[in-house]
Order: sequence, then structure tokens, then C-alpha cells
Amino acid sequence: MKKQKKSIVTIGGGTGSFVVLSGLKNYEIDLNAVIAMTDSGGSTGKLRDQLGVLPPGDLRQALVALSEASDVWRKLFTYRFEAGDLEGHNFGNIFLSAIEKITESNQEAIDRAAEILQTSGRVIPITFDKCTLCAEYEDGSVIEGESNIDENDTLGVSIKRLFLKPSASINLEAKRVIERADAMVFGPGDLYTSLVPNLIVSGVGEIIHYVKAKKILVVNLMAKIGQTENFKVSDFINEVERYLGEGALNYVIVNSKNPSKDLVERYKDIDKANLIEDDVGGTYSRAKIIRADILSDDAYEKSSSDKVRRSLIRHDPDKLAKVIYKLVK
Amino acid sequence: MKKQKKSIVTIGGGTGSFVVLSGLKNYEIDLNAVIAMTDSGGSTGKLRDQLGVLPPGDLRQALVALSEASDVWRKLFTYRFEAGDLEGHNFGNIFLSAIEKITESNQEAIDRAAEILQTSGRVIPITFDKCTLCAEYEDGSVIEGESNIDENDTLGVSIKRLFLKPSASINLEAKRVIERADAMVFGPGDLYTSLVPNLIVSGVGEIIHYVKAKKILVVNLMAKIGQTENFKVSDFINEVERYLGEGALNYVIVNSKNPSKDLVERYKDIDKANLIEDDVGGTYSRAKIIRADILSDDAYEKSSSDKVRRSLIRHDPDKLAKVIYKLVK
Repeated sequence: MKKQKKSIVTIGGGTGSFVVLSGLKNYEIDLNAVIAMTDSGGSTGKLRDQLGVLPPGDLRQALVALSEASDVWRKLFTYRFEAGDLEGHNFGNIFLSAIEKITESNQEAIDRAAEILQTSGRVIPITFDKCTLCAEYEDGSVIEGESNIDENDTLGVSIKRLFLKPSASINLEAKRVIERADAMVFGPGDLYTSLVPNLIVSGVGEIIHYVKAKKILVVNLMAKIGQTENFKVSDFINEVERYLGEGALNYVIVNSKNPSKDLVERYKDIDKANLIEDDVGGTYSRAKIIRADILSDDAYEKSSSDKVRRSLIRHDPDKLAKVIYKLVK
Repeated sequence: MKKQKKSIVTIGGGTGSFVVLSGLKNYEIDLNAVIAMTDSGGSTGKLRDQLGVLPPGDLRQALVALSEASDVWRKLFTYRFEAGDLEGHNFGNIFLSAIEKITESNQEAIDRAAEILQTSGRVIPITFDKCTLCAEYEDGSVIEGESNIDENDTLGVSIKRLFLKPSASINLEAKRVIERADAMVFGPGDLYTSLVPNLIVSGVGEIIHYVKAKKILVVNLMAKIGQTENFKVSDFINEVERYLGEGALNYVIVNSKNPSKDLVERYKDIDKANLIEDDVGGTYSRAKIIRADILSDDAYEKSSSDKVRRSLIRHDPDKLAKVIYKLVK
């Protein structure tokens, strides 16, 4: 009997999902990217508000990551108009908005786009309900809107809890792939604006808790001011298990290779951001800690056509995928 | 030896070209659509001015006419956004603008779009030079801009001459396909805002005059106020031969079937437009007059997504293509 392909579900959004999907797409697996639906900034936010479409930005990034289509498509999907009525709008976002308008259902629209982009994997929104991400901080203040939370770089203030306004229900297709997954990969990417916005959709935490899939957390490399300032590896695990249940994670992947001191200094100067400190042993909670060199050797990737500034210190998609695949196969 | 496919070049733009291409694409021919580059209205005009791209509207219509791709693509290419920053912009126009921005040459951009749309034929701009269509009227007045000329519905004023400002040179690829054509089809469509804008590009009249291709004029069904008011078949032939040289046309296709009286009356009421009167015999100038039922039986086609109002009295793509193919094969 032919061995069935393993099914992996990634949970996230934005650049982090882009990295993990770019690597995993090269393996013989059944790959499903579950994507947060709370992006509210720039072109994405405008299209969402003006046209009533799903926020296209994170969907677009996941589709491009999984695309096996010609270079033209990948260039088109990351092209941003520079003048006139379309200024600041990304072509991929416009494309997704148009296809959503002409198709019957939102998932059909995404699947059609995936077909055109010849993706090796599916992209599935965590929810189809329109909602706003809100963050309540330790000082009692509340910020509404993912992009506003993202842009908040007040030092020394940490997020107490995140919630959706109004609350949102899980997309049944996302539920289906999660229930059938052999493994789930959480992160990398912004903890509070890419990963957790999936986990606070009604029902998601419970479903993930009871499914048998191996649950793998990829810990970020760098802290993010206003969100994960001073976070260590243990903080990431604790935060994620707040939503999934204590002891839910089976594996936690931590980078073991040090970036150059110069680069680390540059981060401190520009972003006031530190490396995430590895403060755990061989296990933490119930998770086994997997340490490996998953650091990208490319020091810099320019990206004028995309709103997301690429980190100078970032994961290598292939190295990361190799570690994940080894845990799953 | 395998018989080589006949090469047909259509010259025009807009809805007229859409009709003739939709029919001809079903034949085993080498089909090339040469398209005017003077459209200046609506979404097309804005994108042209704001982004410095080729006016996409007529290119888009020709590409859709020739497309064999799935219905999704055809729907996408005719979809027009209804709100926000993108309001009034057609997705196909945006697509062509984006692809032009990311490719090296304009023709490559169009060919890439054609590949994606799986067209059975090529779409070739008559010129890559940016220019404005100007009309000088019998009363000495001048109107600049194709859309302004199009919208001028002053009764009893006729166009004395058309010119481009600044003058434009023929695209070498257009020259190449014209020189190799077995047949050329002029029209149908707006004489002064779709057909003649091709013929006044520098060099075009002379090249068409000396090539051996069979030259076929498809005469319009209805007159257009402000342009071809009171025109008869002989006027169309005379006007086209002004640019191509007297006696240049080999065949002139004239519809022989009368539309219903009701429809004709509706045109008179709404558009103050008459049927083009057939005032010629078996030949005119040096052209043989071909009369056939090429009238569409569909009385009405709604088109909210496109700026071009579909005529109620119009050519049937298949009937028209059959007559043309018979003259060429």
C-alpha cells in the first residue's frame, strides 16, 4: 500500500508563515496554511474596509510562498503601485479582492487564486467573520486594530490579553484540516499579531487541544518592542500554551546558531530589539526542545515592494523545514 | 506538404474588434489583432496618465475576446470595482498595468498576459508612442482626446480630419504582421475613434497600401452621431480609402438582414442614430460588395461591468467570421 502523505497545518500569518511555507512546500506532504484574518494596515486594511473583502495581505503572502508558478506571477503578486488611484496597493491584494467579488464563496476565491498560482498546498483563513484584533495592556489601556498594535513601540509595556471584537467563529474548512493534521506548526512570526489572532477565534484552542497532531512551536529569533520585549523561550511556550492548554506542545524548535555580533548590535540600535534568550533545558512544560542551526545566512533581503520589512536576522526556510519534516515523517 | 495557416490581421479597437475576434478565434488561422492606442476615457485614461502605461482598455477587450481560458479569467478581466480607491477601475486594466510595470518591454507584457489568458491569437498595439487623438471638424473646431471626441454628440457637425498629437510611429511588430498577412480586416467599430486612429499612425497607410493581403472592410450597422451621422456604405469606403489609397479595398462586407422595426425606432429615439444605408451596387471603387446576414439575433446584452454600452443592433461574431473566413481560405 502506498504510504499516505503526512498532513501538516501551519498556523500564523505574515512573514513568518511565508518563511515556513517556502521551506515546507518542497516536501512531499499535504500542506495547509491556516492564516489569521485580522490584518488591518495599508493596502490590506483599505481594501477590507472599502470593498468588504477578506483582508488579503496575509493570504497573498502565503499563496506566493506556496506558488510554483512562473516568476511573472510571483513578481505580480508582490508588485505595489507607486502612483495615482492605485498608489500603495499591492497587485496581489487587488487580485484577491477581485476574485472574491466574482466567485460564490470566499474559500472558492482563495482556491481559484491558488490554482492560478499553482500552489503546492492550500491557504485557509482561520475565520470568515469580520473582526478587529484588540490588545489590552498591563496598564489597562486598549489598542484596537492589528496595525495599531503592530506599530505600538512603547517600551516596557506588555500585552495582558488579546481579544476579537466582535468574536469570530472558526471556518469549518480550517477546523477540518486541523482535525486531520499529523502535525501543526505554530509560528514563527509576530506572536501577538500573527499567531495568537488565530488562537483566540472561538473554538480554536479547544480543537487544537484535543487533536492528536504533533504540535510544534517555532520560537522567534528576535524580540519585538511593544509585544515580546524581554521574552525568553519559556515565555513563548507559556504564552502559546495559555491558548492551547498547558502541556499541549510536543516540540519547540529553537535556533542554536548565533548571528554575528554586528547584526545583533544593529538590531539593538535600530529596533531596540534583543535576541530571544534560550532559558530552557531539554524539555519545558511537556515539550521536547529541539535545537538546530535554522538561521539564514543571507544577511539582508531588500523588499521595497512589500510592506513587511524583512528582518536582517531571520530563519532559513530550508533549514527550518528540514527540522520540522524530521519531526513529522 | 502541410498547408500553412492563413494569417489574418484585424485593425481596430474597442467593441468592434471584440466582435470580430470572438468569431475568428474559432478558425484555424494565424490571428493578430492590431489595436489603436488612443483610448483616453475612464479607468483606461486614468491608468495611462497616472502610471504612464499603454492605454489598457482596448488591449484588454481584445485579449478577452481571444481568450480560451476558464470563465474565471474572463469574468476577472471584465470586473469593475465599485467602491473605494479602486472605484471605476477595471481589473483587466489593472492587471495589464501591473504586468507592464514588471516586464522589460510593452509587447512582452501583452504577450505574457495573452499567455495567462490562453489567447488564440496575438494582440499588438499599433504604436508604443504616447499620443492624443484630435479631431478637426468642418466648422474649424478641434476636439482633443478620444473620449471627448466619442462623447461629442452635436448634430450636423462632421469630422474633417483626424490627427495625432504628437505624431506616432508604427510599432515594428505591427508592421511585421501586416506585411505577412494574407488578409486584413478593417472594422467594425467606431470609424473615427477605433479604426482611423490606427491608420493615421505614421507609415501605416503606405504599408497597408503596398502589401498584397486581401483588404476587407466590415461596414458598421448603425451610424454614430457626431461621427458618422448620415453615413452610407459608400461613405465608409471613401473614408477608409482616404487613408489606404483609392481602390485599396478588395472586399466590403455589408449586412443584408433588416433588424426589427421596433429596434430601429428605439435607436432613433435614444441615440438619434440611423441604420447605415446600403447605397452601392455589386462593386464600389475596386471593392466587391459582399452582402450577408451578419446580424446578431440577441436583441440585448447588458454590460454593467464594462464602459462600452453594447449596441442593441450588432454583428453576430460567428456569422461575421464565417463570411470573412470564406473570403480568405
